[in-house]
Amino acid sequence: MVHLTAPTTDPAHTGVPDGLVPGLTALLDGEHAEVRRRVIDGITSYAHVLEEGETLPPEEFKDRVRDVVVELAGSGLTGLGFPEEYGGGGDLGASIAAFEALAHGDLSVLVKVGVQFGLFGGAILQLGTRRHHDAYLADVVAGRLLGCFAMTEHRHGSNVAALETVATYDVATQEFVITTTREDAYKDYIGNAARHAELAVVFAQLEVGGEQRGVHAFVVPIREGPSTGSGRRAQPAAGVRIGDDGPKMGLNGVDNGRLWFDGVRVPRTALLNRFADVSPDGVYSSPIESQSRRFFTMLGTLIQGRVSVGGAAITASKVALAIAVSYANRRRQFEATSETEEELLLDYGLHQRRLLPLLARTYALHFAQDVLRTNLHAVLTGAGDGTEGEEHAKRELESRAAGTKALATWHATRTIQECREACGGAGYLAVNRFAALKADTDVFTTFEGDNHVLLQLVAKGLLTDYASEFEEMNQLDMVRFVAGLAVDTVLERTSVHKLLERARSLLPGGSEADAEAGHAGHAGDVGLRDPAYHLAMLGFREEHILGSVARRLKAGVDRGRNPGEVFSAVQDHVVAAARAHVERLVLEAFVEKVAATPPGPVHDALDLLCDLHALTVIEADRAWFMEHGRLSVSRAKAITAEVNALCREVRPLAQELVDAFAIPRELLRSEDLIG
Amino acid sequence: MVHLTAPTTDPAHTGVPDGLVPGLTALLDGEHAEVRRRVIDGITSYAHVLEEGETLPPEEFKDRVRDVVVELAGSGLTGLGFPEEYGGGGDLGASIAAFEALAHGDLSVLVKVGVQFGLFGGAILQLGTRRHHDAYLADVVAGRLLGCFAMTEHRHGSNVAALETVATYDVATQEFVITTTREDAYKDYIGNAARHAELAVVFAQLEVGGEQRGVHAFVVPIREGPSTGSGRRAQPAAGVRIGDDGPKMGLNGVDNGRLWFDGVRVPRTALLNRFADVSPDGVYSSPIESQSRRFFTMLGTLIQGRVSVGGAAITASKVALAIAVSYANRRRQFEATSETEEELLLDYGLHQRRLLPLLARTYALHFAQDVLRTNLHAVLTGAGDGTEGEEHAKRELESRAAGTKALATWHATRTIQECREACGGAGYLAVNRFAALKADTDVFTTFEGDNHVLLQLVAKGLLTDYASEFEEMNQLDMVRFVAGLAVDTVLERTSVHKLLERARSLLPGGSEADAEAGHAGHAGDVGLRDPAYHLAMLGFREEHILGSVARRLKAGVDRGRNPGEVFSAVQDHVVAAARAHVERLVLEAFVEKVAATPPGPVHDALDLLCDLHALTVIEADRAWFMEHGRLSVSRAKAITAEVNALCREVRPLAQELVDAFAIPRELLRSEDLIG
Repeated sequence: MVHLTAPTTDPAHTGVPDGLVPGLTALLDGEHAEVRRRVIDGITSYAHVLEEGETLPPEEFKDRVRDVVVELAGSGLTGLGFPEEYGGGGDLGASIAAFEALAHGDLSVLVKVGVQFGLFGGAILQLGTRRHHDAYLADVVAGRLLGCFAMTEHRHGSNVAALETVATYDVATQEFVITTTREDAYKDYIGNAARHAELAVVFAQLEVGGEQRGVHAFVVPIREGPSTGSGRRAQPAAGVRIGDDGPKMGLNGVDNGRLWFDGVRVPRTALLNRFADVSPDGVYSSPIESQSRRFFTMLGTLIQGRVSVGGAAITASKVALAIAVSYANRRRQFEATSETEEELLLDYGLHQRRLLPLLARTYALHFAQDVLRTNLHAVLTGAGDGTEGEEHAKRELESRAAGTKALATWHATRTIQECREACGGAGYLAVNRFAALKADTDVFTTFEGDNHVLLQLVAKGLLTDYASEFEEMNQLDMVRFVAGLAVDTVLERTSVHKLLERARSLLPGGSEADAEAGHAGHAGDVGLRDPAYHLAMLGFREEHILGSVARRLKAGVDRGRNPGEVFSAVQDHVVAAARAHVERLVLEAFVEKVAATPPGPVHDALDLLCDLHALTVIEADRAWFMEHGRLSVSRAKAITAEVNALCREVRPLAQELVDAFAIPRELLRSEDLIG
Repeated sequence: MVHLTAPTTDPAHTGVPDGLVPGLTALLDGEHAEVRRRVIDGITSYAHVLEEGETLPPEEFKDRVRDVVVELAGSGLTGLGFPEEYGGGGDLGASIAAFEALAHGDLSVLVKVGVQFGLFGGAILQLGTRRHHDAYLADVVAGRLLGCFAMTEHRHGSNVAALETVATYDVATQEFVITTTREDAYKDYIGNAARHAELAVVFAQLEVGGEQRGVHAFVVPIREGPSTGSGRRAQPAAGVRIGDDGPKMGLNGVDNGRLWFDGVRVPRTALLNRFADVSPDGVYSSPIESQSRRFFTMLGTLIQGRVSVGGAAITASKVALAIAVSYANRRRQFEATSETEEELLLDYGLHQRRLLPLLARTYALHFAQDVLRTNLHAVLTGAGDGTEGEEHAKRELESRAAGTKALATWHATRTIQECREACGGAGYLAVNRFAALKADTDVFTTFEGDNHVLLQLVAKGLLTDYASEFEEMNQLDMVRFVAGLAVDTVLERTSVHKLLERARSLLPGGSEADAEAGHAGHAGDVGLRDPAYHLAMLGFREEHILGSVARRLKAGVDRGRNPGEVFSAVQDHVVAAARAHVERLVLEAFVEKVAATPPGPVHDALDLLCDLHALTVIEADRAWFMEHGRLSVSRAKAITAEVNALCREVRPLAQELVDAFAIPRELLRSEDLIG
């Protein structure tokens, strides 16, 4: 653990309590502490990869990253989510925690691990059956067999149901024939495809006996021929054309590529047949009746990708903050409080405002990610008895994963940018890590589900109470569905409704009748630092926005407008409802973590951070709260003053709060910034 | 000019008037149309450099960029700001316009041009006298003599007055002796230093006869020895150590480096002596008495750099929007209004919200930049009679340049990011330009003056009414100065005060006495699309924030607190005052441009955009307006609805509005995004 405190902020002088840093670290590392630390030790020995990303020629760097991934696989740290019989760890939660820890290092390594073990291996595990597991998983887990996940096409990313690759069953030969149906419908951005994958899991529209059965996944060899020196096959398989996506903004250690299939034949058993199968004589069968339901069940098993990306984004934010806060705590510029000595950057009020709320939000998201990871583990390793309650829990989990991923990845983009700027010109040098952090994480906001599309999924879940058919509804269906419900029905089913039933008395303004800002009552005895008040505020916002979205959708349909146009007009409101929902979940996770922490310095530090996070969120949307009668002008101003006060209170702990991330010095680099 | 309109939005079908695009282009190009188009033609022939940035090894790319810069110099387009007798164009305004146009191409070329002709050449022109001009300028302008601008040090960027390089006059040899006084006080991030510069303009603390005279600039050879193949000298000069800053986030075609000086001797005439000189026998003299005043006068002549960077940022935003809007106007995803055809992205309300206000703001900043460029030309090429009025105009100009640079560069960062995300995974591929746009412009927010520091300079100017000594005041002086004034005095001197005297009747809420939100009157007959209303709102905000900053500074000092602590506590408020001021100037420029445009389709399109820009700005800060009694809850909601309505109205013109930037197809690249 690095401790970079400058002399003037030595704990001895500022009263930072002993044990704060290790206590926080233990809390952050949580139940998977041992796995996290093993992964971090592992990648610290590969810290030089961070520099090689800048110095090696691009193709060499890609091969270097491949080698690192294969070596990591040998250590057993990348296969924790696979069954033990195939060399895995049999612990899904630990595998997510390991991935989060991996994000402290080079992010090409991270994403290549995600492609190989999460997407490719995960698809075989989750969509395949015993025959696929036995055939592939041991080699996949050990890194002997590299593969790719060929879902996205050039013309279709977010709208996976509209893919244009076709797999036709040929009953005569008992094979599937895979074809890219138009030149520009190639698989695109496929990690591992351009250089290293031997196999691909290919998503294609299944056609059996002239009938369209929707999107299914197939294992397709894409390279063949004699092994090259490094034990890989080098030639594209017959009928497969492979292209390279060329240089990218970041992640240039990952070989993203394009795939075209020209009548490629694979045996009948190449269909990953957990959710649907085709018999030798061409009879299609599935335990799930509805085609689109089947499709979303398949996609749902891939939820780990979203959870992993969100977690990695939080880690990347920590790395950026560890550098920027440590720098601000050493760097002096301009005389301010003294005529003779320049001031520490972190003693400037503006600098505190720039960095400390982002630090608080990083903690908040960390704890929200803890909840998500724990739920994921519980739901995916549960009994699988197919009960209604279990199905509902799955859909809620998918929604939480989507929403957390969106908020966490946008947070990373914003945090890394602010941290870079807060380090001035030095932040621009590659040696100081921001260059790669920024470039590599940029795509997080749009891959594994575009954030705006994900938030619309979240809103759809809320509006339909995760009705069993909700994921299958397109925008038009969803609008029609909501239009058919009473708004109160929509609201009463939500979890926030129960929260508010308990907490409404905490809100100034009382009933909705007096919802004009000027008439909102003052808070009376409700303190600005009361977490119940914070939660009630975010809960109120969530329910109110959701209700008005439902009302607007109904009103539009009632007036006979095209549901698509109605949706388009309400769309930013729909996304706002989803954001409000996820913000409440994030805060709830933080509040519960503080409440569960025993009294002491760790508790007190988290309590401050949680208040700072909550009030920053409320402050950012205080216009909305005033517009909806839940904040008076004077209380709105008081919140801004309180955020400033909290920044000043957190400032003496700032170094400890980033030291608690316990990031090895080698992974931070930035020698000229933080010594 | 590209016209990328998709069939469904063909002007013929949507009623876009003929002549809109050329009319807008002519207006945007303005008085320097011919120069702009010549530059764009010039860089279009170098469009392949955009690709070479991805494919050439870094050192080769740096040399390639150097060659392009030298070739451009030969075309006369990079020296427009220099006197004609040295091969320049003698037109400062045109030189800024040329730089803005250059930013359509590779930004390493742009920045290398900025370093060579703006910073290095500009310093010799502005800080030197005839002997320096005659000795160097013809070669500088022609690109035969490359140089660098060695101001920033590793330990001091923003605080230039605290530089630690020293130049001591040795009367015995009539030389200055230049020394880096500590190992870590090297010159850092110096463009052109690592590979190509023969000369450096070095900023150092002048010491004459044991007296400290503050920062001055010297011409110092940093490379010597026989020419290399390309006609450049390759060896560091005696006593000079040169380092390389290594890989950077972007701008890797520029050779940024580090310089250490170990007793390097230069003749007495190496001092750039326009504002101060040392006689052979060691007598220091200057026409400007105050040392810090002299220093800021020197810095003031370098204002062009800020104006240039701001202009380049606006151009980069246009490139990003041209790609993202054209893509959104072709790309379909998900069925929305139709069951059978997917929807154009730009027909989604959310997508309009994401892109169109950014487009409107880009137009706004363009016109604000026009005003700035025109003022710069007028002030810097004015009579130079040293009158009080002229001095005041100079300081106002410096403030406007600082503020516009800050807003324009942050806008570029935000716009490029949003455009990248709006293009999904494809936006991540280098061939689609966002990678380089984002990486290369990132440093704009912190170089040529850190944006936060610049905004504090703006605020200081406002608070002190650009008192002759304002630039020299450090934070403590400034706080004390303001504390000595009546708040009304501060306000009455500002330009916004006059604006408000005329416009106050347009504001709902009347006098300040009833400034609580709930009591604010409704707008009555003041329309939401009335530019006078928009200006009055932004003017009110500016004056109010400025007044309360002054009050808080005074109150703090009156209570006997350390002025530095007072400043730190108020600092985010100080920056808010500056932002509010610059936002008003930007809107004013747009409103005036619309008013000056004759009736017709161009006028109408600009009018819509101006309303969209103004209401977006007010909407973003509507919490503040409610808190200060200038917006009722119902009117705040009406503004949000109006922004949505304006987005829908602008949408049919969106393609034309980016086509009007008239960016050659070759410079946009992005074939798979926009065909």
